[in-house]
Amino acid sequence: MFASTMQDFPLTVTAILRHGRRVHGGSECVTWTGAAPRRATFAEVAANADRFAAALSSLGVRAGDRVGTFCWNTQEHLEVYFAVPCSGAVLHTVNIRLFPEQVAFVVNHARDRVVVVDDSLVPLLGGVADRLETVETFVVVGDGDASPLGDRPVVRYAELLAGHEPGYVYPELDERQAAAMCYTSGTTGNPKGVAYSHRSTFLHSLAATTPGALGLSDRERVLPIVPMFHANAWGIPYAAFLSGASLVMPGRFLQPEPVTRMIAQERVTLAGAVPTIWADIVRHGEEHEIDLSSLRRVICGGSAVPRALIERLRDRYGVTVLQGWGMTETSPLAAVSHPPAFVEPGTDEDLDWRARTGRVVGGVELRIVDDAGRELPWDGEAVGEIEVRGPWVTASYHLDDAPEKFDDGWLRTGDVGTVDRYGFVQITDRAKDVIKSGGEWISSVELENHLMAHPEVVEASVIGVPDPRWQERPLACVVRRPGSTVRAADLAEFLAGRVARWQVPERWSFVDEVPKTSVGKFDKKVLRLAHEKGDLQVETLDR
Amino acid sequence: MFASTMQDFPLTVTAILRHGRRVHGGSECVTWTGAAPRRATFAEVAANADRFAAALSSLGVRAGDRVGTFCWNTQEHLEVYFAVPCSGAVLHTVNIRLFPEQVAFVVNHARDRVVVVDDSLVPLLGGVADRLETVETFVVVGDGDASPLGDRPVVRYAELLAGHEPGYVYPELDERQAAAMCYTSGTTGNPKGVAYSHRSTFLHSLAATTPGALGLSDRERVLPIVPMFHANAWGIPYAAFLSGASLVMPGRFLQPEPVTRMIAQERVTLAGAVPTIWADIVRHGEEHEIDLSSLRRVICGGSAVPRALIERLRDRYGVTVLQGWGMTETSPLAAVSHPPAFVEPGTDEDLDWRARTGRVVGGVELRIVDDAGRELPWDGEAVGEIEVRGPWVTASYHLDDAPEKFDDGWLRTGDVGTVDRYGFVQITDRAKDVIKSGGEWISSVELENHLMAHPEVVEASVIGVPDPRWQERPLACVVRRPGSTVRAADLAEFLAGRVARWQVPERWSFVDEVPKTSVGKFDKKVLRLAHEKGDLQVETLDR
Repeated sequence: MFASTMQDFPLTVTAILRHGRRVHGGSECVTWTGAAPRRATFAEVAANADRFAAALSSLGVRAGDRVGTFCWNTQEHLEVYFAVPCSGAVLHTVNIRLFPEQVAFVVNHARDRVVVVDDSLVPLLGGVADRLETVETFVVVGDGDASPLGDRPVVRYAELLAGHEPGYVYPELDERQAAAMCYTSGTTGNPKGVAYSHRSTFLHSLAATTPGALGLSDRERVLPIVPMFHANAWGIPYAAFLSGASLVMPGRFLQPEPVTRMIAQERVTLAGAVPTIWADIVRHGEEHEIDLSSLRRVICGGSAVPRALIERLRDRYGVTVLQGWGMTETSPLAAVSHPPAFVEPGTDEDLDWRARTGRVVGGVELRIVDDAGRELPWDGEAVGEIEVRGPWVTASYHLDDAPEKFDDGWLRTGDVGTVDRYGFVQITDRAKDVIKSGGEWISSVELENHLMAHPEVVEASVIGVPDPRWQERPLACVVRRPGSTVRAADLAEFLAGRVARWQVPERWSFVDEVPKTSVGKFDKKVLRLAHEKGDLQVETLDR
Repeated sequence: MFASTMQDFPLTVTAILRHGRRVHGGSECVTWTGAAPRRATFAEVAANADRFAAALSSLGVRAGDRVGTFCWNTQEHLEVYFAVPCSGAVLHTVNIRLFPEQVAFVVNHARDRVVVVDDSLVPLLGGVADRLETVETFVVVGDGDASPLGDRPVVRYAELLAGHEPGYVYPELDERQAAAMCYTSGTTGNPKGVAYSHRSTFLHSLAATTPGALGLSDRERVLPIVPMFHANAWGIPYAAFLSGASLVMPGRFLQPEPVTRMIAQERVTLAGAVPTIWADIVRHGEEHEIDLSSLRRVICGGSAVPRALIERLRDRYGVTVLQGWGMTETSPLAAVSHPPAFVEPGTDEDLDWRARTGRVVGGVELRIVDDAGRELPWDGEAVGEIEVRGPWVTASYHLDDAPEKFDDGWLRTGDVGTVDRYGFVQITDRAKDVIKSGGEWISSVELENHLMAHPEVVEASVIGVPDPRWQERPLACVVRRPGSTVRAADLAEFLAGRVARWQVPERWSFVDEVPKTSVGKFDKKVLRLAHEKGDLQVETLDR
C-alpha cells in the first residue's frame, strides 16, 4: 500500500467539543423554563461539561461504562452529551416515552451504572427504579423531590458541577469506540440498541451541517423540539457545536403555546419536530395570534409530512419545510427533501418535491431491492425495500446480531418505496404495512396523505385487513374534525379522484384518535389488534 | 473498549464518485474551449472515469502506482481525478508552472509511470521529457502534435476511452491509502510531496461543502480558476461531486476577457482564484463592459486579499468575497473569512472581517505559539507562529520527514499571526518575511495591504533589509499605475496615518513588476536577491 502522509487524527466528539468551545464559544444555549429562559454560551456549556466529566470520574465511571439520561432537551442534557463520550464513557439516552417495562429493559440491557434524570421526570423513572439492576447512582437535575427513586445514592447535578473545576483533561480516544447508545422504539419485540461510535458521530455531525442536509452555520438559531433521546435529536446538538448554530432548548414545554412563544422571543430560524407537532402549531395559529416571522425553515421527520401541512406553513407563515428521513439505525440523517436545482423555490412544483421523502444525503448510500433481493432501477417507478449503508449506519444491534435486518452489508430499513434519477426517495409504506390486494400493492401512506388533505379530516391511518376475495383490502381509520358530519362515501369519492379506483377502501371506521407509538408515529399494530378483536366499528361501502 | 455497532465503512474517493454519479448525475461539467463550450453531465464524467480506469489497467498501472497529470482544468482532468484514485492508483497533479528542472524533479521523485498531458502543454513538458526517468507512457488529451515528448509510447486519451466500456468494477480500498499527491511550490529547496489519503480527501470534501467553508449545493455553478494542480483546486472538484454543484472548467483561458465571458454565459455563481486574478478582472471591468450579475461569491486564496479589492467587488458588482486560508499541506482548507454572526452583511464592518485571514473551519485545529513553543492566547493581540492539526493535515512529506516542519503532532505552517476569541485568524506575515526592527516585529503584509489600497499603487511588496542600527528595516518595492508620478514621500505620508510611525519604511524602490512564484505569490526571495546584488534602485527618505 502506498501510504498517505496525512495525520492519523481521530474523529471524536472531543474534537467537536474543542471546536465549539473555542471557535464558537460565544454561541448560545438557551433553555426554556416556564419563567425567564436560562442562557449560557457554548464556552460555559463546555466548562460545565468539563466539570461533569470530572464528577463522573469521582463517581467511579470508567472508560466504556454506560451513563443513562432520562431528560428533556436542556442545557444540562447538552453538557452531559459532551461530558460522557469525551470522558470515554458511553451516553445512553433513554426514551422517556417508552412503556415502563421497556425503560427498565433498556437500562438493564445497556447496564447503565449512572442515570442522570430531570427532577420533573423523577416520578416517571421512580415507577421502575426498583427494577433497574445495574444503576449505582442517580444524578438528579434540579432540586425537586428525589424520594421516588428509592434508596440508591442520589446526587444533585448542580452540586457535582460546583464540586469540580473546568479544564478536565479528556483522554485520547479510538474513533471506533462507542460514544452513545440509543434504543429503537421497537413496535415489535424488545427495543434494540444501536451504539454510535465517535467516528460515526463526528461524520454525521459534519454531514448534518452541509446544505444538502440541515445547512447550519452560526447565523442559525435552532430549536430542537425533537427529543435528545430520539436519535440524538437528529444530530442537531453536536452539529450545533461544529457549526456554531445557537440552540434553543424547549425543556418540557412542547405544547404549541410555549413553542410559538419561544420561537418569537428567541428569534428561532430553524426548528425540528415530528409532523404532528407542526400540525398542532398550525391549528393553534388558527385561533391565536402567533409570530413565526423569524422562522425560515422547519425540519420534519419521524413520519411522512402531508403536503397540505407544508403548503399551510408556506402560505400562512412563509416557512419552508424540509423533510428528513432516517432512523435510529442511521444516526439518523439519510435523506432530506431539498428539491433539485431545476425546481423554482416557492412554486407548487417545489411543494410537490418537499412532500416527497427526501434526496439521499452525501455519505449515505442507498438502494432498493425486490423480494428476491435484486437491485431495482432508480426510475421513480420500481417499488422495493430500501437498504442503506455508510459510515453512520449500523451494522448490528447491541448484543443482538439480528441478521434478518441486514443484507450483505446493507441495513434493511423496513421502508418500501421508489427512487428517481435525482436520488430522490419516495417512501410508499413500511414493508409490514403494505397492503397486498389481489397481487398488487397498495400504499397505506399514500391513502393516508390524501385523506389528511381533506378539510374535514384531522388524522387518518390505513391498515390492511383480510379479505376473502383479494387476500387483503385497506381499512381507513379516520379522525374527523369536531362537529364534522363528513361520511365514508364522501371520503371514498374524494379519494377516487386521487388514486386508482381499485385502491379506494370499502371499509371505513371513524375513531376518536389514532393510537401513537412512544415517538409519535401511528401505531398500526394497535389498530390491527383492535380490528381483530372487533373493537373497531367498521362501515363497508359497496364496491 | 466498548465497541460501537456502526458499519466499518471506508471513506473513499470512490464513495464520492458513486454519490455524484447517482444522486447528482444531472449536474454539469462545462469546459471552455475557445469555441463552443463542451458540456457533460456528472453521469457522463463518471462513465468516462470508468473507461479511463479500465484503460489504466490495460496500460499495466497497478494499485499504488503514480499517474501524473500535466493539465489545465478540464472535463478530462476531472475524469482522471476520479479514475486514478478509485482504481487504487495515486493521482499526482504536476504544477505546470514549476521551473522545468522542478517538473523533472517531482515526476522522478513521485516515480510517475504514466503522465496525462494536455496537447497544448506538450511543448512545455517536452522540454524535460528526456529527463523523466520513470515514465513509461504519455497519455495525450487532444490531437495536437505529440512529437516533442520523444520516442516513449504515446496514446491518445480519446482512443483509450473509446477502447473501454463504462461499468469498471473499482476495487475495495483502505481509506488510509494514498489517493493523490501534490508537491509544494517550494520557494526554498526542492518541492516537497504531500500524499492525501482517501480518508482525508473524503473528509476535506465534506467539510468544503459546509456553510462554514464554501457552502456548496446543487444550486451552485462553480468556476475553479485556481488550478487543479494547486492543492486540488482547493478541493472544489471532489466537493462538487459530493454536493452536486456544477463545474465550469476554464481550460487554458484564464485571462479576464474569457473568464468574465464564461461567468456571464454559464451563469457562474461562485468562482475561486488568487487575488491577482480578481484584481485583473476588476481592472478589465474598468475599460470593458462585463456582466458579473450571476456571481454571488468569490473565494480568494493563495495570498492575502486587499480590503480595497473586496470593497470594489462588492460595490461595483455586488459580489461577496470569502478568503480561504490553507496550503498544500492542509488539503488546503483551514480557515475561511465568514464574519461572525453578529456582523451585519454588507456593512463596512463586514468588509473588515472579510479582509482578515479567516475563521477556523470545523475539523481543523489551530494554535499559535511563540519562539519558545509556548501556546499563546486567542486575544487578537498575541502574535505567534500558526500551527494546525487535523484529519486533512499532513504529518510528513513523501520520502522526507522534515522534522523541522512539525511540532508534537502539529504542522508548523510558517505563517505568523494572531487569533481572536471568535477563532478568527489574522496572518501578519510569513515567518521568514517578518521584519525584526530593533526587537519589534513589523508585518510586511500589513504594509503591503495599506500600500495597495493607495489609488496610485498597483502592487507593493515589502522585504526586510539589513540596517546597521535597527538590525533590519523594511524596503518597500512598489509598482505604480502607468503614468503615475506619486513619490516615495507621498506614500510614506500615506502609511504614517495607518501604521505606527516607526514602522513606516525609509527605503523605497519603484519597480516595473513584483516577481511572482509559480502559483502567483509575491516572490520575496527574488526581491531580496536583487537587493543584495544591488539590482534595485533604492531611494532613502529621512527618518
